[in-house]
Amino acid sequence: LPYKINSAEEHKLEITDEYLDREINCNKIIGRDAEELEKAKILSVTVEYKKRRRLTNEDYANVSQNCEEFIKRHKYVMFPLSEEEKDFPIAYSLVVHHKIDVLERLLRSIYNPQNLYCIHVDKKSPESFLKGVSAIADCFDNVFVASKLENVIYATWYRVQADLNCMKDLYARSTSWKYLINLCGQDFPIKTNLEIVKTLKALNGKNSMETEKMPPNKEVRWKMHYDIEDNSIRRSSTKKSDPPIDSPVFSGGAYIVVSRDFIKYVLEDKKVLNFSEWSKDTYSPDEFFWATLQRLPDVPGSLLSNSKYDISDMNSLSRFVKWSYLEGDVRKGAPYPPCTGQHVRAVCVFGSGDLVWLLKQQHLFANKFDVDVDPFAIHCLDKHLRHQALFMKERSSL
Amino acid sequence: LPYKINSAEEHKLEITDEYLDREINCNKIIGRDAEELEKAKILSVTVEYKKRRRLTNEDYANVSQNCEEFIKRHKYVMFPLSEEEKDFPIAYSLVVHHKIDVLERLLRSIYNPQNLYCIHVDKKSPESFLKGVSAIADCFDNVFVASKLENVIYATWYRVQADLNCMKDLYARSTSWKYLINLCGQDFPIKTNLEIVKTLKALNGKNSMETEKMPPNKEVRWKMHYDIEDNSIRRSSTKKSDPPIDSPVFSGGAYIVVSRDFIKYVLEDKKVLNFSEWSKDTYSPDEFFWATLQRLPDVPGSLLSNSKYDISDMNSLSRFVKWSYLEGDVRKGAPYPPCTGQHVRAVCVFGSGDLVWLLKQQHLFANKFDVDVDPFAIHCLDKHLRHQALFMKERSSL
Repeated sequence: LPYKINSAEEHKLEITDEYLDREINCNKIIGRDAEELEKAKILSVTVEYKKRRRLTNEDYANVSQNCEEFIKRHKYVMFPLSEEEKDFPIAYSLVVHHKIDVLERLLRSIYNPQNLYCIHVDKKSPESFLKGVSAIADCFDNVFVASKLENVIYATWYRVQADLNCMKDLYARSTSWKYLINLCGQDFPIKTNLEIVKTLKALNGKNSMETEKMPPNKEVRWKMHYDIEDNSIRRSSTKKSDPPIDSPVFSGGAYIVVSRDFIKYVLEDKKVLNFSEWSKDTYSPDEFFWATLQRLPDVPGSLLSNSKYDISDMNSLSRFVKWSYLEGDVRKGAPYPPCTGQHVRAVCVFGSGDLVWLLKQQHLFANKFDVDVDPFAIHCLDKHLRHQALFMKERSSL
Repeated sequence: LPYKINSAEEHKLEITDEYLDREINCNKIIGRDAEELEKAKILSVTVEYKKRRRLTNEDYANVSQNCEEFIKRHKYVMFPLSEEEKDFPIAYSLVVHHKIDVLERLLRSIYNPQNLYCIHVDKKSPESFLKGVSAIADCFDNVFVASKLENVIYATWYRVQADLNCMKDLYARSTSWKYLINLCGQDFPIKTNLEIVKTLKALNGKNSMETEKMPPNKEVRWKMHYDIEDNSIRRSSTKKSDPPIDSPVFSGGAYIVVSRDFIKYVLEDKKVLNFSEWSKDTYSPDEFFWATLQRLPDVPGSLLSNSKYDISDMNSLSRFVKWSYLEGDVRKGAPYPPCTGQHVRAVCVFGSGDLVWLLKQQHLFANKFDVDVDPFAIHCLDKHLRHQALFMKERSSL
């Protein structure tokens, strides 16, 4: 790693993996060394790697019996790494449904004792998953499972409701946090907590998210009434009434970076509640609900509805995602280079070769990551960010 | 003023004007008090006000004979107001041609001893104007007149060349500054130097400026050859060759916020020099030259050419400007409310009633201001910013 951590205590907090670090040099991955990238790609599909033991729901069920050991073994950072971070707590809403080891790796990477973490577990998840997540949460006084759980069905309002449930709990639990970030199980940060804090401060109370003119082809998602049956959504032939708002419906993403004042307004304002009600029988409201609120005039941290204030996904800070049909040669007009991992429903699941590009983006988090596609991508990114965080702490105390 | 400055020394640095402060309470202007705004509007057109004595070129010609007195009387801040500012010098390029008292007010408002200021005086300006500006510059070791002066003709390449001349001088004179901001005589800051510094740091080496897809109606400005005769520009019937670059020509503004690395590249890169040459016989290249460089792949601090990276004037930090044909009710989709001053060639010259809105914008500078339209707008803004700067200094030393 580029800069050496001199403190023995901090050195113990570096992220390591016996197997992965033995096979691959993450510095070379971050440096985009072609040979190392090739090696990583091959290793990701070896029988040895695929046969490795993954931590299961049951493995986590008992961690709360010895939290100190769990925290130490999993290398959680149990003290704020700077005064600046300590004075700027962040609230996180995590909506998850499976792969407890991946969730826990994400939690470990963003965990700071001054922040607050709400985990919404899908009601459809196995009991053992909820049990495992609850056990993890029990080890921290700033991590909890949402008080109300939804049956999160793909492309339905329940996805938004899950976030709202966490937002309500987070808002009630603490007045110290200033910004809220929402995540899902396949997200990973591409910034350290300190970098996130500095970026949030620079927002000066404004929210950050994708919010653009609604493309005509997506109008059907909220112009028609949808039914929810058998855990899935289906369009009906009934038209919906117009939305109960004065400005247009805007298009955006499910992931947002919002102020506490925004959350308060969303939880309490009558107009917002009417708009929520109206959105319940639409398709994928997560992709227009927040983007539309962000353009209502009285909403804290919002923007005006005029198109000059449109924010593309690349101009937002919330989430970096690569869509297969847009990938290409950036010198010929593509917004980003091709995915080095795999695609799932057109979304790039990052490979190790994507890391260098990821680390240059302005976004705070990126999606998607999957240990089953490329474990080195997450491991090297995790390792890199933890090292940066420890090194910045060391540097600031000089 | 909201917060009291307790230090006697700093109190002397508050901005005052015997006449203006006697007639109008700036706090009420900033608070958008309807009665006070009405009063200010009426006073702006009174005979008494219009007859007041303005400082002339000749008044300034002799200031360098007693700089200490000039600096004290005009209340220049002669020490950095914080460590953070001291460690982050900014370079300014000011392109001006008349109204020396207005220029000097602008200089005084942005002056900090750690920054560097290049003033490009139009070759067409009266000798007495150049003499006055040179005398002001002689009082400061960080203010100078550009080594090469152009005859700046409206809508010609010479406007860009004036900035390039200052950029060359600024680049050669100092390696400490990290960002450069360019200004004209009718600009005024809407942020304190500390706020500007914090914003520039958050850019992390990226440039900020308007850069958008070229509207079809503006293509004629660079698709046809223009001639310059009798100090004016005229379109010919000759078509130009294609621009010597791979990406499209983008549309933007004359005002930019750029890194020192960007400046170095612009001054030295062959491709940029070719593009400059090609731009010399176009109409208003200031409004496509920078915006286009900002989308070339190897330019430091630039963005990719894909439209996802387009930045509207309202999403940029560089300059806040109101265009008459866009002004209106923001709750009905206008980008900004109507101008409370007057319009000159469709651009709003701000009135006192615009101040509240101005202070909420993310931009660093706004355009246009004119003492002949509304002196209270500039005075109250100047006063407000100076007070904020002094108060922040006092607060940080507690």
